Amino acid sequence: MSIARRLSELHIDLPTVPTPVANYVPTRQSGSLVFTSGQTPTKDGVLQYPGKLGLDVTVEQGQRAAELAALNCLAALHAHLGSLDRITAGVNLTGYVASTQGFADQSKAINGASLLLERIFGEIGRHSRAALGVAELPGGAAVELALVVEVSQSHGRTDTAEMS
Amino acid sequence: MSIARRLSELHIDLPTVPTPVANYVPTRQSGSLVFTSGQTPTKDGVLQYPGKLGLDVTVEQGQRAAELAALNCLAALHAHLGSLDRITAGVNLTGYVASTQGFADQSKAINGASLLLERIFGEIGRHSRAALGVAELPGGAAVELALVVEVSQSHGRTDTAEMS
Amino acid sequence: MSIARRLSELHIDLPTVPTPVANYVPTRQSGSLVFTSGQTPTKDGVLQYPGKLGLDVTVEQGQRAAELAALNCLAALHAHLGSLDRITAGVNLTGYVASTQGFADQSKAINGASLLLERIFGEIGRHSRAALGVAELPGGAAVELALVVEVSQSHGRTDTAEMS
Repeated sequence: MSIARRLSELHIDLPTVPTPVANYVPTRQSGSLVFTSGQTPTKDGVLQYPGKLGLDVTVEQGQRAAELAALNCLAALHAHLGSLDRITAGVNLTGYVASTQGFADQSKAINGASLLLERIFGEIGRHSRAALGVAELPGGAAVELALVVEVSQSHGRTDTAEMS
Repeated sequence: MSIARRLSELHIDLPTVPTPVANYVPTRQSGSLVFTSGQTPTKDGVLQYPGKLGLDVTVEQGQRAAELAALNCLAALHAHLGSLDRITAGVNLTGYVASTQGFADQSKAINGASLLLERIFGEIGRHSRAALGVAELPGGAAVELALVVEVSQSHGRTDTAEMS
Repeated sequence: MSIARRLSELHIDLPTVPTPVANYVPTRQSGSLVFTSGQTPTKDGVLQYPGKLGLDVTVEQGQRAAELAALNCLAALHAHLGSLDRITAGVNLTGYVASTQGFADQSKAINGASLLLERIFGEIGRHSRAALGVAELPGGAAVELALVVEVSQSHGRTDTAEMS
């Protein structure tokens, strides 16, 4: 089944790819690896679930935030690849969680993103992962994700910047 | 000399590979690169040296913690590769250190892992590295490591999940 | 135009590559990817702009710090590659910013590095990027950068350690 159809089945609409707020690009490919820029849980340009885990964001809200950030990663990959069917493997996910003193459930929060990738991509979406608790994230985000995926080789290297 | 023999010479037993606590896999390979998931200093499933550097964990304990986390990375790589002799280069190590206000010796702590890789692999184990001080780590760990290595190419891509 | 000439035009002198303070190497190549070790804003071995964003380092100073750390990354790449002309693509930049409670402008600070890469390399320098706020950085640095670039393939793998 195509990923587009799977997304439809899961009632997931890919968001528009967030515009980088600075001098970088949403994705960059080298060989068969594509690196996404760090994505936060924005929706239509508005940050969702701002704050910190352990204070004003619950673990459950952190999981929703991680899902949204993962969707933004996929939106960036879709804009770059044309089709998410070109993804042949999740490779690595680094999940940063804005954490107050003593909060230790970063893995549970980031798992919102891992579960979503599994639901959408099945076996292909499996990835290695690190979850970390950080002091602060850009714009007051609760979660930030950086994703690396493997894609089937297209002719030559392209990246989002060159496509736009 | 094989890495197995070298480990024996150093009186190092590889631990059993820690089971991921969530929906990800301990290692994921793409081409000749293998990414490990973030590993903490667990031993037989129990976190060692919990706490923070600068407060309740000394630099020396942090170095021991980094060694344990590195061994867990190697255990995951061993489970994935079958033999650590397939590793042709350490590539990159990111070392996160749970740090209190004003603690600045992250490099010294993470060097416990770098020295261990050097003792085991010699020249092959040399790696680029970043050491960072973070607010909190999953489960209250003092140290977390994410390792990328280069391996000799096997036939096709495999990963831990597909092997289990 | 060669990168050396471009640097001269911009009145930029590449610093000497900082010696790693521990058992790792400044760069490590695998295939066409080169990973740099984390670089801080040192100049002639002395840390510039020490402290934290949100407290004793302004956003503007953070941008200067990010530029210096980026130059140290380039110095390490130059020592490894012989010529920065061998770089065919910026790939990924992870920028860590030592941040006090409530500081949320990590992206603005790290953009000092992104802008510098754009000024020096043009289109080639474009990269994916994550900016994070961390508790503490080694030696009390305000900024630390880890850069991954793509290079044209040379004959066999080399790294800084093997070249020195």
